[in-house]
Amino acid sequence: MNGWVKIAGLGPGDEALVTPEVTAALAEATDVVGYIPYVARVAERPGLTLHASDNRVEIDRSQHALQMAAEGKKVVVVSSGDPGVFAMAAAVFEALESGPSEWRDLQIDVLPGITAMLAASARAGAPMGHDFCAINLSDNLKPWSLIEKRLRLAAQADFSMAFYNPRSKSRPEGFVKTLEILRDECEPERLIMFARAVSRSDEAIRISTLAEATPEMADMQTVVIVGSSRTRVIERKGAPIVYTPRFTPDEDQG
Amino acid sequence: MNGWVKIAGLGPGDEALVTPEVTAALAEATDVVGYIPYVARVAERPGLTLHASDNRVEIDRSQHALQMAAEGKKVVVVSSGDPGVFAMAAAVFEALESGPSEWRDLQIDVLPGITAMLAASARAGAPMGHDFCAINLSDNLKPWSLIEKRLRLAAQADFSMAFYNPRSKSRPEGFVKTLEILRDECEPERLIMFARAVSRSDEAIRISTLAEATPEMADMQTVVIVGSSRTRVIERKGAPIVYTPRFTPDEDQG
Repeated sequence: MNGWVKIAGLGPGDEALVTPEVTAALAEATDVVGYIPYVARVAERPGLTLHASDNRVEIDRSQHALQMAAEGKKVVVVSSGDPGVFAMAAAVFEALESGPSEWRDLQIDVLPGITAMLAASARAGAPMGHDFCAINLSDNLKPWSLIEKRLRLAAQADFSMAFYNPRSKSRPEGFVKTLEILRDECEPERLIMFARAVSRSDEAIRISTLAEATPEMADMQTVVIVGSSRTRVIERKGAPIVYTPRFTPDEDQG
Repeated sequence: MNGWVKIAGLGPGDEALVTPEVTAALAEATDVVGYIPYVARVAERPGLTLHASDNRVEIDRSQHALQMAAEGKKVVVVSSGDPGVFAMAAAVFEALESGPSEWRDLQIDVLPGITAMLAASARAGAPMGHDFCAINLSDNLKPWSLIEKRLRLAAQADFSMAFYNPRSKSRPEGFVKTLEILRDECEPERLIMFARAVSRSDEAIRISTLAEATPEMADMQTVVIVGSSRTRVIERKGAPIVYTPRFTPDEDQG
């Protein structure tokens, strides 16, 4: 078998944030599979077949990719951001584990990308400049009680936090509850940032506090970053800078 | 003032993981500042001055960069990985906040990069494929008691965890204590990965369990990743794949 699967991160949207490694893999591929808007970012060319599929069919898509590779195709599975952060890599490995044993002989590589949280953090300044966590707020694949437990423990640990998939149209109440939990655990002045469509033409960054934040500030295109107790703002003429200092004094343990 | 500062992430080492945005910034720069081994990755050319400095002078280096930009220079501050993850962005903003007020008028951008944790995760499979946290284990800038608190709460939250700066020559006891805390909080079979020099010629990935891990498996060039309670291994002919499934059942809350 000369086929392979590369699970590639396209970054948050701007082509200047796609790594040369990913660009080279796309240039070599015979087939690209992925969610419709991500496949739309790949240029068509002779010899390349694009297989765009809808959301929530990650396992079908993964099986398709592995099967094509087993037939000798060179397959790139595209994710936005980084494929290992709430994206396609885990889905491909789930399909691999439950699939035919010959799939395990395939060459499978994960090509990292700029995940939304880091692009958003860069735009705001350096809010994740100290210890941090990342939580997927969607309860499609895990119970809400686990999300609540993680939110409370992360706040008690005084991590900066990044939230992916904060608010879906079908379940808007999750982010309402998230804000309630955070207000219960953190002070009202705690900084919270809403970064929508980072690096794309419709990018919008909004800096607020827990006291002033409303659920409508987030949608599924938004990454939400909550600072630690030490995250600060530098005011200036242009957009303010939000950052978390590297130093934590002995007496301040969040 | 036409000067600017761009705080750029060079990724973990492989040039194929440097974003085109960072490459373009380096091509436009008049001055590059950074820690010696990172500045050594920037090609010399006419019109570009390289300012390499030693470790632990991050604030001096940041002040130098801001001062040069105030004088009209185009300055790139280089970090390895992502500048917002335990790297130079927070240091530059600390220097900005305490510096002359005219520095606040400067154009300052953070250019994200592939941070070591995501490169290491990609090499192993997808161990951070679910909720996760990142902790800097160095106690140069924070008390050890805060590190211990975060380790315990992160284990109780059942995050996958990535550790930066796990073990310095001057303070090897920190990682010994880290392993003790993890053994106290997690089961002996918990997966732990040691990823050294990821994407460089001397890359070495080692997969172990908490029961079998020893402090010597880590040094300052290593990123350590601890799986969640649900992280699994797929055995195969080549290197095994380590990944965390996306789905968590209702009855299993870590």
